[in-house]
Amino acid sequence: MELRVAVRADVPAVLQLLADDDISRARGFGDAPVAEDVDAAIWAAFEEIDADPANELIVADQDGEIVATCQLTFIPGLSRGGSRRMTIEAVRVRSDRRAAGLGRAFMEHVLTRGRERGCRMAQLTTDKRRADAHRFYAGLGFTASHEGMKLAL
Amino acid sequence: MELRVAVRADVPAVLQLLADDDISRARGFGDAPVAEDVDAAIWAAFEEIDADPANELIVADQDGEIVATCQLTFIPGLSRGGSRRMTIEAVRVRSDRRAAGLGRAFMEHVLTRGRERGCRMAQLTTDKRRADAHRFYAGLGFTASHEGMKLAL
Repeated sequence: MELRVAVRADVPAVLQLLADDDISRARGFGDAPVAEDVDAAIWAAFEEIDADPANELIVADQDGEIVATCQLTFIPGLSRGGSRRMTIEAVRVRSDRRAAGLGRAFMEHVLTRGRERGCRMAQLTTDKRRADAHRFYAGLGFTASHEGMKLAL
Repeated sequence: MELRVAVRADVPAVLQLLADDDISRARGFGDAPVAEDVDAAIWAAFEEIDADPANELIVADQDGEIVATCQLTFIPGLSRGGSRRMTIEAVRVRSDRRAAGLGRAFMEHVLTRGRERGCRMAQLTTDKRRADAHRFYAGLGFTASHEGMKLAL
């Protein structure tokens, strides 16, 4: 498994991973544009991520197939002695690859990447309905110490 | 109350707000450097935030006094149709100003700022012990739909 920053050609596979998810479908992601139908907003978002050293769209490439993805944002801050934190968004592991420990290996790579970027804290939010995900992250050492609060603007 | 991006001269006041908090003290923030003692890591973090259009350190200035602060990060993403989200970190309202609705006015300004920056979602995490904060954010329309998970790196 190779962990690397996504290139344009990976975007359709990343979108398919993002859409292949019950909770995302329930909030209207079932009709996410893929492949040729990827629309301008999504390409603009990709270009913005790609151009920004503080954001990395990560993919796990296994024999040419994209089997996992997430987005990392490295955020400077004055708290905790001026240390940087890494926010992890949009984590997906392909559903047919979850059993074999691939997700764990993927996340361990991601945490290593955070350390390389000088981050002293990793953080993510996960929907309260995702009980499997909570166990998964707890197994990696994450603590559910905070409420994750969201507001549509 | 004037809401504006912090300048260098505001940093000591922001650090004092960050330090004036029971939970932050419990994790070792009680001896946060302030004023002349602000150390290199904190200045470096301020410079990094200040130079990055995706990060804004916000202060509320009331008659020349800094009475509230937070840090905003505007994050592009492929999810939800390529929409941008705003992460809100390190929210503090000066303890002697919380009763008069200042916090609510501050956060409403912050949410407006997110809309101006094209964000379609605002998100934050808040320590599960901060029951008052949960009520405060719920009153602004935030939903505690997610677990906020953290891992020291």
